[in-house]
Amino acid sequence: MRFKVGGTLAYEVLEPSTFIINIHALHTPAQTLVEERFTVDPAHHIEELSAAHGESRFIRLDAQQPGMLNITYSALAETSVKLIPADQLASVQLMGMDTSVIPYLYPSRYCQSDKLYRFAHNHFGHIDSAFEKVLAITDWIHDHVEYLSGSTNSQTSAYDTVTELAGVCRDFAHLGIALCRALDIPARYFTGYACQLNPPDFHACFEAYLGGNWIIFDPTHLIPLNGLVKIATGRDAADASIATMFGRVNGLSVTASCELADEGFEPIYYVDGQLSGLSYL
Amino acid sequence: MRFKVGGTLAYEVLEPSTFIINIHALHTPAQTLVEERFTVDPAHHIEELSAAHGESRFIRLDAQQPGMLNITYSALAETSVKLIPADQLASVQLMGMDTSVIPYLYPSRYCQSDKLYRFAHNHFGHIDSAFEKVLAITDWIHDHVEYLSGSTNSQTSAYDTVTELAGVCRDFAHLGIALCRALDIPARYFTGYACQLNPPDFHACFEAYLGGNWIIFDPTHLIPLNGLVKIATGRDAADASIATMFGRVNGLSVTASCELADEGFEPIYYVDGQLSGLSYL
Amino acid sequence: MRFKVGGTLAYEVLEPSTFIINIHALHTPAQTLVEERFTVDPAHHIEELSAAHGESRFIRLDAQQPGMLNITYSALAETSVKLIPADQLASVQLMGMDTSVIPYLYPSRYCQSDKLYRFAHNHFGHIDSAFEKVLAITDWIHDHVEYLSGSTNSQTSAYDTVTELAGVCRDFAHLGIALCRALDIPARYFTGYACQLNPPDFHACFEAYLGGNWIIFDPTHLIPLNGLVKIATGRDAADASIATMFGRVNGLSVTASCELADEGFEPIYYVDGQLSGLSYL
Amino acid sequence: MRFKVGGTLAYEVLEPSTFIINIHALHTPAQTLVEERFTVDPAHHIEELSAAHGESRFIRLDAQQPGMLNITYSALAETSVKLIPADQLASVQLMGMDTSVIPYLYPSRYCQSDKLYRFAHNHFGHIDSAFEKVLAITDWIHDHVEYLSGSTNSQTSAYDTVTELAGVCRDFAHLGIALCRALDIPARYFTGYACQLNPPDFHACFEAYLGGNWIIFDPTHLIPLNGLVKIATGRDAADASIATMFGRVNGLSVTASCELADEGFEPIYYVDGQLSGLSYL
Repeated sequence: MRFKVGGTLAYEVLEPSTFIINIHALHTPAQTLVEERFTVDPAHHIEELSAAHGESRFIRLDAQQPGMLNITYSALAETSVKLIPADQLASVQLMGMDTSVIPYLYPSRYCQSDKLYRFAHNHFGHIDSAFEKVLAITDWIHDHVEYLSGSTNSQTSAYDTVTELAGVCRDFAHLGIALCRALDIPARYFTGYACQLNPPDFHACFEAYLGGNWIIFDPTHLIPLNGLVKIATGRDAADASIATMFGRVNGLSVTASCELADEGFEPIYYVDGQLSGLSYL
Repeated sequence: MRFKVGGTLAYEVLEPSTFIINIHALHTPAQTLVEERFTVDPAHHIEELSAAHGESRFIRLDAQQPGMLNITYSALAETSVKLIPADQLASVQLMGMDTSVIPYLYPSRYCQSDKLYRFAHNHFGHIDSAFEKVLAITDWIHDHVEYLSGSTNSQTSAYDTVTELAGVCRDFAHLGIALCRALDIPARYFTGYACQLNPPDFHACFEAYLGGNWIIFDPTHLIPLNGLVKIATGRDAADASIATMFGRVNGLSVTASCELADEGFEPIYYVDGQLSGLSYL
Repeated sequence: MRFKVGGTLAYEVLEPSTFIINIHALHTPAQTLVEERFTVDPAHHIEELSAAHGESRFIRLDAQQPGMLNITYSALAETSVKLIPADQLASVQLMGMDTSVIPYLYPSRYCQSDKLYRFAHNHFGHIDSAFEKVLAITDWIHDHVEYLSGSTNSQTSAYDTVTELAGVCRDFAHLGIALCRALDIPARYFTGYACQLNPPDFHACFEAYLGGNWIIFDPTHLIPLNGLVKIATGRDAADASIATMFGRVNGLSVTASCELADEGFEPIYYVDGQLSGLSYL
Repeated sequence: MRFKVGGTLAYEVLEPSTFIINIHALHTPAQTLVEERFTVDPAHHIEELSAAHGESRFIRLDAQQPGMLNITYSALAETSVKLIPADQLASVQLMGMDTSVIPYLYPSRYCQSDKLYRFAHNHFGHIDSAFEKVLAITDWIHDHVEYLSGSTNSQTSAYDTVTELAGVCRDFAHLGIALCRALDIPARYFTGYACQLNPPDFHACFEAYLGGNWIIFDPTHLIPLNGLVKIATGRDAADASIATMFGRVNGLSVTASCELADEGFEPIYYVDGQLSGLSYL
């Protein structure tokens, strides 16, 4: 399926600063970038990099001069997803697990799984299948946490959200990740462009590692699961933030868009009695 | 310099469990293991692995049968350290920095640098040299935080310690890391065997990334900086814990020892007007 | 009903200190103290006081000399309780409410009702009767929080317990209070001697203000609701702690006991379809 | 000295709600209200009350009909203050202290003195005089915490502010109170109208109980200490909030003003070598 995606970031730089910008769509076996365009206005010294932690392509940008900074990205992405039968997703094998997956078992800044151990076991510990566990987690979050713009900030973590019960996509994802890890299911943060998201914005959801596959889950239920163009994965928003600034900078605006460039898109959502999990590979 | 190191862990396994055991000394260009011995009693299925995140060699162990589990490790390690002149440690260059270092700029579970931004800038922001900044952080922690066994637990983080002002080596290290990151200095958790530590135990301190080198710092001031045998580094104790258990297990005992196996050891501590930083490479 | 109650406290005083000791049974219209005995060994300067905040009789004790300090209390208390029909407990009227009740609507140190607003409304907001709401809160705590000695400490608050889901009677009471206040139901902390508590100890539960009556609730379900001898009420454990020390003191031991001194005691517990609330007046 | 004070509050009531409005100036031996006017538009059922906890005159208002609600208050207040020599403020005597003062020794929702024990003792424990201790606390807050509108919210507490180091008058006061209590000095929250505050607003500061007197302290240093008209005191903002709403209500605006109605006002600030403390009686 083809998606036309785009993002813009505008800043006022107040003193010499370095930016890490994480808005490029990833190259993966299942995601090809047919066209891509990235501009920085005015021109700056930049480095294009790939992350060893998590997965991301990112730009490091050196802004030595105070003033306005406008960043734009657009791409035409061709993605495919894979549906994996539920019976292949029923268990998590710690023995033999690839070592690169292990960090996603541990607590992180915004996903304090160590503090949610009892909560997770009380609510979801009785469910046999790991896939069913994560579906139940996702439903619980959707049913109990109110989606409320402006209710949280950059310091809000899963430990807050599980009690305060309001947040945005980032908070929903952090809570999902923390609950998975508390049940010994590896889970990671996923950012992307999302079609049919209203109002348009960058989106965050999460992947759980089931039967050796990274399967996508979105507790917001706001978009079709196959409508994402992957930007990055990481332990949590600390790794995969759209933009991280080192230096004094005013954020002025952020926009993102994602449009279908093909016909015949059939949206996929998980439903009761779900038979397959969806993977972005 | 040669050190004879050893560790023992004893557990009662209550149900089928998986362990990740992180007590092997690392192989590095500056640390050679002349002899090494690792035993598990009774025998279990184990995997010897190296971490992609942080640096560690670790054992993954499958304990299917309830019962006692005894793990012992001993090694003869030959280490060298490097002294790097302070003027080469004065700055941190974000542009050009190796991408593997970037995660150590971000907040993590126990090192919430995002919440300590003002504190770090108020106390240490005026110091020019990055090396001097980290020395000042280390001194501040040593002078203000009381070393008090039993005052903290596995959930205690830098955000607690900066206010509650008591803790153990792990807490001292977390606070040092969080303050460095709040000043845009990459920092990571370091665990090792430590000679002259009284009472003997596994030790934790931290490394800061200065002028392209990982330099060791120990806010406890309990041991000579060149008296360590490195076990692992990671974002914080979540990555580099001595043992992580998945399943119901009772911890019974932990011991560690580290003895000089050479003569002529000259302990190195940082002192005022410090001219060099010490690196374990 | 008559109860023989007793308590002992032992301390090692390390420097001149002041104690506030809160182990006397209260005098109330429904609680008469037939005999009472309070001793301090060695003798110290003490003041017997009654609190304006909450309700308590307490001892202020001046320990100028370092050394051992033993405090014992015993009493024969005659109590009566009142059963109030559920239909009189169905609502809370803020207009006209006695001003002394208002503080029990507000958040306090261990009962951060402001942070539990959504949680309380999501779980209990749909229940019409205020009495039924508090019964549901009590049942929820009993069903979801594990009673586990040593799992919490003097800093643990309702905000921790609602997520960590383990604690002791004090934590159960704090969570019950916080949830009531989040629903605009005044609630206060209650400490007392409790018969049939095993092992014997001082007990904590809470009262909610329903239809103008303070009704007792105990989320631990450990004791009969009519088996208490009231010591104190307050906003939370900060007000009604058994002992508060100003100065350096080692706590050595605490014991409490409560025995029935009458025959014919019929224990009362709230059960499904509860028709009455129990008040200590 | 005479002050003309006024306040307005505007709300949109969305469902039947009860308000507790705390904007009346207090009657005290040292504060006389020469004129006073309170209006509610449209008319509502109200109760005028005085608090048993802390000190306040407040209005309880029953808003049964959805719609706009405008509240205005104005008064001409005549106040006197008393300067008490520092040598009478040097100590806090727990023995003999009026029982109504004891709650102000305990931690409260926004003033977690129990968590700041070491911090307070490390920074201020060496100072002999209690008055000098509180002056040092006030100076420390002024020097280390940035006054920054919008940096905090209604959940922010002293435990946050001591680390995050930014806030508004309410946060400054909470931190001052928490540090005093951690040193066994009773302290309470104080709200009032404040002349020469720019921009005009309701103000919060705190009182410490020294030598038997409630002495005023303002870590913001924004106003003359004798330029206040007292509205209320309480344990913290939970007790002495300008307005507390029970029900769904949108806050639309809050204004406050305070103008000198006399000539010859000589502002008083504490300065180094301070010889007296100022009390509002």
